[in-house]
Amino acid sequence: MSQAALKKKALDYHRLPKPGKLSVESSKPCSTQADLSLAYTPGVAQPVLEIAKNPAKAYDYTNKGNLVAVITDGTAILGLGDRGPLAAKPVMEGKGVLFKQFAGIDVYDIEVNAKSPQDFIKVVEAIAPTFGGINLEDIAAPHCFEIEAALKKKLDIPVFHDDQHGTATIICAGLINALHVQGKSLETAKIVCLGAGAAGIASLNLLVAMGAKKSNILLVDSKGVVHKGRTDLNAFKKAYARQTRLRTLEEAMAGADVFVGVSGANLVSPAMVKSMADKPVVFALANPNPEILPEKAKAARSDLVMATGRSDYPNQVNNVLGFPFIFRGALDARAREITQDMLIAAVHALAELARERVPASVLKAYKLKQLKFGPDYILPKPFDPRLAQRVPQAVAKAAAKKPARAGAKKTRRA
Amino acid sequence: MSQAALKKKALDYHRLPKPGKLSVESSKPCSTQADLSLAYTPGVAQPVLEIAKNPAKAYDYTNKGNLVAVITDGTAILGLGDRGPLAAKPVMEGKGVLFKQFAGIDVYDIEVNAKSPQDFIKVVEAIAPTFGGINLEDIAAPHCFEIEAALKKKLDIPVFHDDQHGTATIICAGLINALHVQGKSLETAKIVCLGAGAAGIASLNLLVAMGAKKSNILLVDSKGVVHKGRTDLNAFKKAYARQTRLRTLEEAMAGADVFVGVSGANLVSPAMVKSMADKPVVFALANPNPEILPEKAKAARSDLVMATGRSDYPNQVNNVLGFPFIFRGALDARAREITQDMLIAAVHALAELARERVPASVLKAYKLKQLKFGPDYILPKPFDPRLAQRVPQAVAKAAAKKPARAGAKKTRRA
Repeated sequence: MSQAALKKKALDYHRLPKPGKLSVESSKPCSTQADLSLAYTPGVAQPVLEIAKNPAKAYDYTNKGNLVAVITDGTAILGLGDRGPLAAKPVMEGKGVLFKQFAGIDVYDIEVNAKSPQDFIKVVEAIAPTFGGINLEDIAAPHCFEIEAALKKKLDIPVFHDDQHGTATIICAGLINALHVQGKSLETAKIVCLGAGAAGIASLNLLVAMGAKKSNILLVDSKGVVHKGRTDLNAFKKAYARQTRLRTLEEAMAGADVFVGVSGANLVSPAMVKSMADKPVVFALANPNPEILPEKAKAARSDLVMATGRSDYPNQVNNVLGFPFIFRGALDARAREITQDMLIAAVHALAELARERVPASVLKAYKLKQLKFGPDYILPKPFDPRLAQRVPQAVAKAAAKKPARAGAKKTRRA
Repeated sequence: MSQAALKKKALDYHRLPKPGKLSVESSKPCSTQADLSLAYTPGVAQPVLEIAKNPAKAYDYTNKGNLVAVITDGTAILGLGDRGPLAAKPVMEGKGVLFKQFAGIDVYDIEVNAKSPQDFIKVVEAIAPTFGGINLEDIAAPHCFEIEAALKKKLDIPVFHDDQHGTATIICAGLINALHVQGKSLETAKIVCLGAGAAGIASLNLLVAMGAKKSNILLVDSKGVVHKGRTDLNAFKKAYARQTRLRTLEEAMAGADVFVGVSGANLVSPAMVKSMADKPVVFALANPNPEILPEKAKAARSDLVMATGRSDYPNQVNNVLGFPFIFRGALDARAREITQDMLIAAVHALAELARERVPASVLKAYKLKQLKFGPDYILPKPFDPRLAQRVPQAVAKAAAKKPARAGAKKTRRA
């Protein structure tokens, strides 16, 4: 299909037969006067009084417990940058479609016209009673870190910035399996991360929590290697500043086991890939155009395991493997937050699933003859029905198992 | 059914088979990889770019144009008072059910934890890009007046406080027909309004706009007749302060043609009804227990026309006759606001509909043998399918026909 035809198809999908992608339906009967007297007055008074008495009853009598806000200020829409809240609406609705399709979660997309991170925080805090969880989306770094931290602290429902933790979860699951295929381990792998935004920083944090060594990590941003001599670093980058004489991406790549790109198109050359250690792992995740195309990277060397963000190559790092199921698990457990332990549980569930035999239904859905764990299959496929069981279960289990701190008095917010 | 059984039935309706009354569905196909590439990346980029270029395109590519926020701070929930935002959620969801059932409008219920009217205004303003209209709900007077006025000024989408204008619209339609039945006219009717909250003030404003004379109106609040000697009046009440020696409801009622009660249970005695003029009209709208029960009022005198807020008596003044259709008309016309002319158009459409022959389908839905314009049928029935045609059409027509002001330069916000 031509570019113009593809664009028309995308616009028609959004416009016809009626504008948008989400609609709201009554989940209860409402076609007679008797129905209405239950749905509205006088019947509605009873649940109001119950909830006023005991706020937890909102989970019994309203849609709160299955309802997530997908919420943005529109400052970092996909790879398109700051386009304002209104223009972000198709993306937020799309996320709602995915939440429903993959995990049966109801989503209200909310586009916020905020003048500052403080403003945004206030708005989300104010409307939070409506929801069972908050999914922050497409908010530019470094504001996204501040916003997420503040909301996690203020709210008693899970707050999740998918561009950070969703992406990090899938990257970690993929990397663990890629290293396994290559016979390497996270503990000793030399890792280069290109891109120090939401996804880069969160992925490194999760990798470190799972065993990667900070002394093996080189973070590279648009100004080059993040090192201790730099004076332009925010606190999040500073955590990865190394004492090193390396300055360029090229210098960083030499001898690396793992490259993770969450930056921009074509920033990695075949020569850089050639300079990596034996059996390297290259995750070139810039979308839609990766840091280096798989055909180019593989021409440079045949012993690599490669992943991209695209569905037209093997090993797609796709957030849809994470957020629906992480939230499903968190909502099912009625967790008050999404902890690092819950993310790690999701990472392991995803990594393990990819190592199992693939059911015939999945092969059929993807029109594939076979799919076996190895260089071209390190992550489950989105339409694998086992995801909806395994990942939420693992996440909910981790939510239930909070580490007991000896001597520490447990504060449980009412 | 016993009270306990009724309560259980209402709670079960809200809880089973799953909690709440609203669910969100994808309105577009989303079961294959190809669908997802249209619903989310890469397909979603195209509508984002179109909307960034031209904000009006949000009405073509997102659900904005059919989406209304039903939004509250929980300060005046039904007749239950200030119970906080969370406890209001069943009511707001219920309103969403009605919007969908009667007018096909999608609703996100939003419960706002606001510390002040200014806070609430800021929150609604910030999230407004999401929506095609704002329905304010269950916000206590007098804050509701300030909130509505501020939001109408700030936003370029319709803002409607249903407890004011929805109620006022149905009251006016009912009164016009009740006066018609009694052979009286709005222009000369002596009107007593008991209750000076959102509904009372808005109803008087609309009645005056439609021809009622302020010099014929007596407003009565919990302290008695609103008169010029009082020093405790807010600006909204002050507009109805009369130079009069009347002080009590009892004194006000003597000789009145019309009583409108939007106050509390049992505040009107049979003696007061007896003291009214010939062929009086009594709208006792306190819910669930009216200012005087119909059987009591009719025992006091047989020549009255009576309405209540209840579905188990004739002439129910029910907001569902208004808000779904008023918004349907406003959204269809893509109106920037809901003007008084649009409300008046709705009043006339409703009043006229009640004077027409009732279709067999309506009789069947209500298990009635007949229904003819007269003392016991002054307002259409909610499940009358003609409502969905007539009222939105009338409202949209009024939206299109803005009065041209000679010499005034028309400012049209982009």
